[in-house]
Amino acid sequence: MTHQIPRSQVAAANDPSCDFPLQNLPYGVFSKGGAGPRCGVAIGDKVLDLAACESLGLIDAGGTFAAPQLNGFIARGRAEWDRTRARLTELLAEDGPRELPLVAMADVTLHLPICVTEFTDFYASKNHAFNVGVLFRGPENALPAQWTHMPIGYNGRASSVVVSGTDIRRPMGQVKGEAGPEWTACRRLDLELELGAIVGADSVMGQRIGVDQAEEMIFGYVLLNDWSARDIQAWEYQPLGPFQAKALGTTISPWIVTQAALEPFRSEGAPRDNDLLPYLHEDRPGFYDMTLGWTMNGQQMACTNYTVMYWSSAQQLAHHAVSGCPMRVGDLLGTGTISGPAPDQTGALLEMTQGGKVPVTVNGAPRTFIEDGDEVGLFGFAQGDGFRVGFGPCTGRILPAQP
Amino acid sequence: MTHQIPRSQVAAANDPSCDFPLQNLPYGVFSKGGAGPRCGVAIGDKVLDLAACESLGLIDAGGTFAAPQLNGFIARGRAEWDRTRARLTELLAEDGPRELPLVAMADVTLHLPICVTEFTDFYASKNHAFNVGVLFRGPENALPAQWTHMPIGYNGRASSVVVSGTDIRRPMGQVKGEAGPEWTACRRLDLELELGAIVGADSVMGQRIGVDQAEEMIFGYVLLNDWSARDIQAWEYQPLGPFQAKALGTTISPWIVTQAALEPFRSEGAPRDNDLLPYLHEDRPGFYDMTLGWTMNGQQMACTNYTVMYWSSAQQLAHHAVSGCPMRVGDLLGTGTISGPAPDQTGALLEMTQGGKVPVTVNGAPRTFIEDGDEVGLFGFAQGDGFRVGFGPCTGRILPAQP
Repeated sequence: MTHQIPRSQVAAANDPSCDFPLQNLPYGVFSKGGAGPRCGVAIGDKVLDLAACESLGLIDAGGTFAAPQLNGFIARGRAEWDRTRARLTELLAEDGPRELPLVAMADVTLHLPICVTEFTDFYASKNHAFNVGVLFRGPENALPAQWTHMPIGYNGRASSVVVSGTDIRRPMGQVKGEAGPEWTACRRLDLELELGAIVGADSVMGQRIGVDQAEEMIFGYVLLNDWSARDIQAWEYQPLGPFQAKALGTTISPWIVTQAALEPFRSEGAPRDNDLLPYLHEDRPGFYDMTLGWTMNGQQMACTNYTVMYWSSAQQLAHHAVSGCPMRVGDLLGTGTISGPAPDQTGALLEMTQGGKVPVTVNGAPRTFIEDGDEVGLFGFAQGDGFRVGFGPCTGRILPAQP
Repeated sequence: MTHQIPRSQVAAANDPSCDFPLQNLPYGVFSKGGAGPRCGVAIGDKVLDLAACESLGLIDAGGTFAAPQLNGFIARGRAEWDRTRARLTELLAEDGPRELPLVAMADVTLHLPICVTEFTDFYASKNHAFNVGVLFRGPENALPAQWTHMPIGYNGRASSVVVSGTDIRRPMGQVKGEAGPEWTACRRLDLELELGAIVGADSVMGQRIGVDQAEEMIFGYVLLNDWSARDIQAWEYQPLGPFQAKALGTTISPWIVTQAALEPFRSEGAPRDNDLLPYLHEDRPGFYDMTLGWTMNGQQMACTNYTVMYWSSAQQLAHHAVSGCPMRVGDLLGTGTISGPAPDQTGALLEMTQGGKVPVTVNGAPRTFIEDGDEVGLFGFAQGDGFRVGFGPCTGRILPAQP
């Protein structure tokens, strides 16, 4: 018996190297011509206009697809996510109805897919935490004592989350000088290869969230590049954590790959060093077998897999609410930098170049940190049998500082 | 010549000990009976219904006062703030028009005055930073090296900001145990006496904000109690800063006292230890001569003055945008705990009891940290000549943990 791969009426979606086959159906927000942004789904080299689908009576999401962000649709809940996915699969299948409102991906502008309610960034790759810990605090204090007991995270800044393709300005700021602070353009500008989980349901203030419940609350994932000013970070981050070093911009992919699309790739993460407190215990593995990597100016710099991670997004969400913090639809939870053990598996230049001491080569030129004009791109996909579920591009180019 | 104090047609507003005289006119959001929340202004023992004022043609704010938060009005900008204040002063003066839509403060429910866009908490009292630094890190490392060069802050959680009168649940969480983490109800629950500055204008991503411009962007201030779980904080906060220790709730006063109302009380802050980088220089002092303190179960515990602070809210806002972080209408910037040098001037039990080592007495009973059922109230006012500009109550009661 041959395994039959479901095929789409959109020819490009059936190419095994396409990020957007029928099995994916990621959600985003697009505009075309003078029309305002509305919700869409990526299929092959096309975008299905979901607002138009609703107008045509092909699908029903209570009018939420006409909005310029997906928050309204997401807030309708998991049963609606499932129903809509099933309906989209029917519509876009090889034998689906013709004359769907499909527009060429090449003709659209992609926008932030959600209004980011709040943004939290975690620190869940043990390789990354150890490597960076060595650079900032030395090998003895590299991994904080609580690291294997809780997903460490900090609140980031939602207003600086931008969509792929947005230029990022190199920041000015304070760094440690010979005698006190020095005012300078950032000299150690870095990327961070991450995934971002999008919270799809509200929780109640004063109530915790179980890990299983947390997983049910996650709508999907985006690629996420948490641009980082390492020299500013080193001077500012004690004792209250990184602040302006992380506020210059955070780039996310325009397409949200749903949890449903990733389900076939569910996988264990890194082995545990110790038992967990019950509130962090998960009954089933919370990771996906997913290739993740990044490029600079078109050259692949590193490639790893999401399964290197120690803390899942569901565990992070459960921990986020452990004190009773209410979570909201549209909250974005960064996984933290995703790094494998080898230099060409690291998700940040800080690690790859050992704090700038070991330059790497990009198209023949040396790099320790990011230079003006450099473009960093993230990529990610789960490889199926004859298809892959991918995120599409997540890029940003660095503009010179404005002194 | 006798100084003539402008008087209001609302008799209680002319009592010299009233927080809400004609000179104040703080904004809030209230509801009464079955009607939905709308914007109002406090005057004496009454609330002026601003939505009704607009309906009656007494004032014009583009319909924004009918909303259940002040963000829409605030976004109309400083010229509109000034125009509205002048008009409200006319309306509520002794010789203003009668038959205004005034309702008794005792009959209304007060709500969060703004939709909190994002919440940032700073660390701007040198006494507090030093005292807490000693307790967490010892006297040698108490004050971080950059403390006198930049306003240190961290992003907090906007979703857990609640209005005065909301009960706060004692959190469960991880604390450091003999051998690894222990799961427990928080044993060292604390308050933090702060002000919160409300950002009243957007800034542009990638562009800095000058301190003078930052001051122009601040709409007003609330009292702010940043409830803190000190034992959870001690275990979690390195290296990325406080997280769940600060997520159980942050209580703000329902009334926003405008910058305009505080202008007569403008004052210098604490003396500077060193020159500042130009982006943090302010041309005029950024503080107000304002009494601030807190009570537990009705007993006054501490009283200090805002002028003990080292970094003004305008400096904090300028620093918040130094990396190009875009600021938004409705952003809430906590000053950090406000502490004078003496124990009865401290804004947190952690300092007052020297980390729980020296109990204090509350209504005859000893306290080191907050117990279940305790109610903490903040107070604050600027004392004028025959009147005072105050915030009204900012209270919260602690509910037992839910194991």
